[in-house]
Amino acid sequence: MTIKPLADRVLIKLLEAEEKTASGIILPDAAKEKPQVAEVVAVGPGGMVDGNEVVMTLKVGDKVIASKYAGTEVKVEGEEFTLLRQNDILAIVE
Amino acid sequence: MTIKPLADRVLIKLLEAEEKTASGIILPDAAKEKPQVAEVVAVGPGGMVDGNEVVMTLKVGDKVIASKYAGTEVKVEGEEFTLLRQNDILAIVE
Amino acid sequence: MTIKPLADRVLIKLLEAEEKTASGIILPDAAKEKPQVAEVVAVGPGGMVDGNEVVMTLKVGDKVIASKYAGTEVKVEGEEFTLLRQNDILAIVE
Amino acid sequence: MTIKPLADRVLIKLLEAEEKTASGIILPDAAKEKPQVAEVVAVGPGGMVDGNEVVMTLKVGDKVIASKYAGTEVKVEGEEFTLLRQNDILAIVE
Amino acid sequence: MTIKPLADRVLIKLLEAEEKTASGIILPDAAKEKPQVAEVVAVGPGGMVDGNEVVMTLKVGDKVIASKYAGTEVKVEGEEFTLLRQNDILAIVE
Amino acid sequence: MTIKPLADRVLIKLLEAEEKTASGIILPDAAKEKPQVAEVVAVGPGGMVDGNEVVMTLKVGDKVIASKYAGTEVKVEGEEFTLLRQNDILAIVE
Amino acid sequence: MTIKPLADRVLIKLLEAEEKTASGIILPDAAKEKPQVAEVVAVGPGGMVDGNEVVMTLKVGDKVIASKYAGTEVKVEGEEFTLLRQNDILAIVE
Repeated sequence: MTIKPLADRVLIKLLEAEEKTASGIILPDAAKEKPQVAEVVAVGPGGMVDGNEVVMTLKVGDKVIASKYAGTEVKVEGEEFTLLRQNDILAIVE
Repeated sequence: MTIKPLADRVLIKLLEAEEKTASGIILPDAAKEKPQVAEVVAVGPGGMVDGNEVVMTLKVGDKVIASKYAGTEVKVEGEEFTLLRQNDILAIVE
Repeated sequence: MTIKPLADRVLIKLLEAEEKTASGIILPDAAKEKPQVAEVVAVGPGGMVDGNEVVMTLKVGDKVIASKYAGTEVKVEGEEFTLLRQNDILAIVE
Repeated sequence: MTIKPLADRVLIKLLEAEEKTASGIILPDAAKEKPQVAEVVAVGPGGMVDGNEVVMTLKVGDKVIASKYAGTEVKVEGEEFTLLRQNDILAIVE
Repeated sequence: MTIKPLADRVLIKLLEAEEKTASGIILPDAAKEKPQVAEVVAVGPGGMVDGNEVVMTLKVGDKVIASKYAGTEVKVEGEEFTLLRQNDILAIVE
Repeated sequence: MTIKPLADRVLIKLLEAEEKTASGIILPDAAKEKPQVAEVVAVGPGGMVDGNEVVMTLKVGDKVIASKYAGTEVKVEGEEFTLLRQNDILAIVE
Repeated sequence: MTIKPLADRVLIKLLEAEEKTASGIILPDAAKEKPQVAEVVAVGPGGMVDGNEVVMTLKVGDKVIASKYAGTEVKVEGEEFTLLRQNDILAIVE
């Protein structure tokens, strides 16, 4: 099953926090920092949105920081994704 | 009775979640995941909406993910549908 | 007394739910499904509304589904109507 | 004292509900239906309002239905009026 | 001290309610009707406000009815005034 | 340390209320009227703000009345200032 | 890891309040004034945002005062930053 975002939307997936600390100790879940970095999985075509032309600048594979609470969570074949507007992506992480 | 959406609206119907798991066990209702995928049943003509020209890109038969809580539920001859703006459809599922 | 809607407004009247079930049994009021279908009784002239040109596409006699809670209820000579914007009419029913 | 509405505003006065029923019985105040019909007493000049050109289509003497709660009540020499935007007048009654 | 309103603002001062009734009895404060009529004391220059050109049509000395709750009360040398946008002035009283 | 406002913002400082009454009695703090007059300390360059060209008309040294609650208070080297949009300045006092 | 803000966003980092008072006494944390000054760490490319062309005027290294509560806090490699729109930066401090 493939999700193709519409208009100015992108599909992102939160990246798992690293499970080892610098010293190599494996952390239990509660001790892991909640990740804020997500990966772009699919990008909509852009175009006219509310009367404004939106050009998509994000690409599949970009690591991004998204606005908290923005977008709609979707669950597809057991995996969780978020669909949100490109404008709710705040920054690219490199 | 046929429902013909006006302006930039579409009529969608939630798809039933699969009633069998991968292993073939039939799940009772409460155990089924609430479906987020709907099928487009009818598409409005588009045109000027709040001063912006809206072109309809969705087609009857498209499987879509809609923004939760968006739109108005309607019940026609015992079946439940939702009427919502094309802009509240987040993605196409293939 | 005649009500002539102004600008992009239409006057609608909720249709009574059918009082007989398929099997011919007459249902008491509480058992009847609340109707969502209304009939267009009068249509405004359209024109400039908040800076946008609105063309009226609805006609007297159209059966429509309206956005719940939209509009103003009016009571004229004992009959109840609703005055609302054409944009709050979601679909035509045929 | 004369009230001259500014911009796209109109001055209306609620019409008294008829004090006799069809059978000729005079009703006490509480039994009277609250009137929703008002008469236009004065009309502003229209013109640019919030960047949009507004043409006044209402005339003094028009019987109208106004949006409930819209506008500001004013009391002039013991009489109560309402000042509201032309756009808050929903329909003309004839 | 002189107050010169900026942009599309006007400075108004509420007029005292007449202290005598028709029969000539002087009313105590609580019995007086709260006045809704104010006098324009100063008028801003108008010009571009939020992207729209505003032409000032009010003049110093105009008796006006203002939208309740609109504007900011200011106290200058013991006297109370209100600063509000021309658009919050509903009507001229003559 | 110098604060240079950006875009259509100005930096103002509330003026102390006169500490003596007309009769020359020095008032304790609680008895002083809260001042509403501020002095413009710095003015931003203006320019495009939300798609509208803003021309700055205020000058350093202007005595102004500002909209209550508008803007952000800043404390610099022990002194308190307010940063707010030129549009939140209601009037000049001379 | 580098954070590259998108569109009209900037990445800022709050500056530590000076830990010594004028007299040279080192203050414990609670006695320190909460800093309002931040340093710009990265600047987005600007461009079309909600239909308006935004030119970035801030530069990396600028000391700025930001609107309280604006933006999204991000934590990268143990350091805390804030991502916010250029329009939420109120002033430059020199």
